[in-house]
Amino acid sequence: MKAYILPDLKSSPALREVNIPSPSESEVILKLSASAINHRDIWITQGLYPGIRVGAVMGSDGCGTLDGVEYIINPGLSWGSQEAFQGPDFRVLGVPDDGTFAEYIAIDRKYIYPKPSHLTSYEAAALPLAGVTAYRALMKKAGLQPGEKVLISGIGGGVALFALQFALALGCEVYVTSGSEEKISKAISLGAKAGYSYLDPDWPKKLLKDAGGVDVIIDGACGIGFNQLVKTCNPGARISFYGGTAGKIDGLNPQFIFWKQISILGSTMGSPSDFEQMMQLVTDHYIRPVVDEVIPFGGLLTGLAKLSGGKHFGKIVIDHAS
Amino acid sequence: MKAYILPDLKSSPALREVNIPSPSESEVILKLSASAINHRDIWITQGLYPGIRVGAVMGSDGCGTLDGVEYIINPGLSWGSQEAFQGPDFRVLGVPDDGTFAEYIAIDRKYIYPKPSHLTSYEAAALPLAGVTAYRALMKKAGLQPGEKVLISGIGGGVALFALQFALALGCEVYVTSGSEEKISKAISLGAKAGYSYLDPDWPKKLLKDAGGVDVIIDGACGIGFNQLVKTCNPGARISFYGGTAGKIDGLNPQFIFWKQISILGSTMGSPSDFEQMMQLVTDHYIRPVVDEVIPFGGLLTGLAKLSGGKHFGKIVIDHAS
Repeated sequence: MKAYILPDLKSSPALREVNIPSPSESEVILKLSASAINHRDIWITQGLYPGIRVGAVMGSDGCGTLDGVEYIINPGLSWGSQEAFQGPDFRVLGVPDDGTFAEYIAIDRKYIYPKPSHLTSYEAAALPLAGVTAYRALMKKAGLQPGEKVLISGIGGGVALFALQFALALGCEVYVTSGSEEKISKAISLGAKAGYSYLDPDWPKKLLKDAGGVDVIIDGACGIGFNQLVKTCNPGARISFYGGTAGKIDGLNPQFIFWKQISILGSTMGSPSDFEQMMQLVTDHYIRPVVDEVIPFGGLLTGLAKLSGGKHFGKIVIDHAS
Repeated sequence: MKAYILPDLKSSPALREVNIPSPSESEVILKLSASAINHRDIWITQGLYPGIRVGAVMGSDGCGTLDGVEYIINPGLSWGSQEAFQGPDFRVLGVPDDGTFAEYIAIDRKYIYPKPSHLTSYEAAALPLAGVTAYRALMKKAGLQPGEKVLISGIGGGVALFALQFALALGCEVYVTSGSEEKISKAISLGAKAGYSYLDPDWPKKLLKDAGGVDVIIDGACGIGFNQLVKTCNPGARISFYGGTAGKIDGLNPQFIFWKQISILGSTMGSPSDFEQMMQLVTDHYIRPVVDEVIPFGGLLTGLAKLSGGKHFGKIVIDHAS
């Protein structure tokens, strides 16, 4: 079969002919109909991820068929026994384990879930990794309650958009930030109340004027902008972050944080129970993942370059049939 | 009556003759038998606290009698309707409201609790502010579970010592840090498993070797040492901080924090329910507050100077009868 493998440390994925995998007793073989790209795929090609295995098939997100039924794959493997954190055996699907950028995948039965019927294959492939990450950060860590005010930074990325959709499904008022006016407009058309350019240093003041402060913040950047987020916090606010693309956090003011009883919560991926609850929320509220673009299987490198450039709004999906 | 008032902005407490307070309908008059000093009292004399009222009687902690019964005062006034944070009317007793450095105090009935019988008046006066702060940070925010490993930084201060005693009462293994070997020895004699000098930059490595990491950290300093604390975290660890005497937090590594699912929790004072639960814990486990020194009423300024110097181990208590 055709598959994109990691041919060497710090190199781009290479399209190769490899053997169709043989399933173990607990595994099934899915014929993958679609997959989706994540920042993780880029970091792996840069050597910036733990547990890299050269020669492994890349790709964490996927949707595929078995006996005429279409399934979504939970990419969080061997989470472990604790809900609060992943155990030492935890891996994300796609390096070191063979992933979804292939014609077929061998995957343990416990990681596949029937595709909700309101989703296309493309939308289903867009859901798993970003969806479970957003769910855990927003729902389990921040404990979002209906009617709370939510701020989502850097709208346009997969996790940020799922956080927007999940918070709207709970009846929350959602605000966003972005460096792009176009992305802010798109977020408003999806249901965000307002958006602010983080290039404007006074954006927190504007949000405070409009919203009077927020109760939950979902961030994937950290870095220099983190203190701007803190300024918008209501008393008792929870800031969940799932990434740190803007680097270290400097200049956090402890007095402001303890006096306002603010919680800063690191979150990554999600447990099997997070994944199941996320699937339920998506099913109950007919949530449809935002797909930026569908690219043919041969165009994976173009898709990775687009994701690196940050111009996307939603998930970049790979169609395995074209 | 004699009372220490704040005579002016940025000035030391002054011992003056003032009127015995007249109680409102919901208030009682306690004859104060003992009070205790907090860092808050120093910050008030430096103008570094919100809501300062010149002329108010200072002092947050106290114990006093009414009709032959001895009571402890909860210094958290008008907490508000939310458990998660204090409301806009919240004040800590002792500036702007008249406090405990006096012969008598008028206080609402709902803030007084009969002194647990195993405590002396001095120990009772040492308990309220630091006890409720430690309880909320350790129990409500960090959600400490029996058997977890706990690290308490800067052992010797009131909140840190109560956190040590409460964690030991829950059957936890407790580690401490201090700049003083003498304080570490005293903490070990109270039940701490081991202690580390934070002056040694390699202390986190030593703790990791001894304890294999900790589940809960209680800190009141923040500043440059905060990243040293983070290094000792087990997956799923919770860091509660109630102060920021060492200043801002710099250089927080987001990847380490989200991958380990670490929570950083600002906490201040406590709700009436926190106070009641803290009193229950102290009563059930016969916990006796650590008293550094008992000073006569006339020696308040000496006590404040000692607290500023940081040489104390436990609470500095004022005996109102001497």
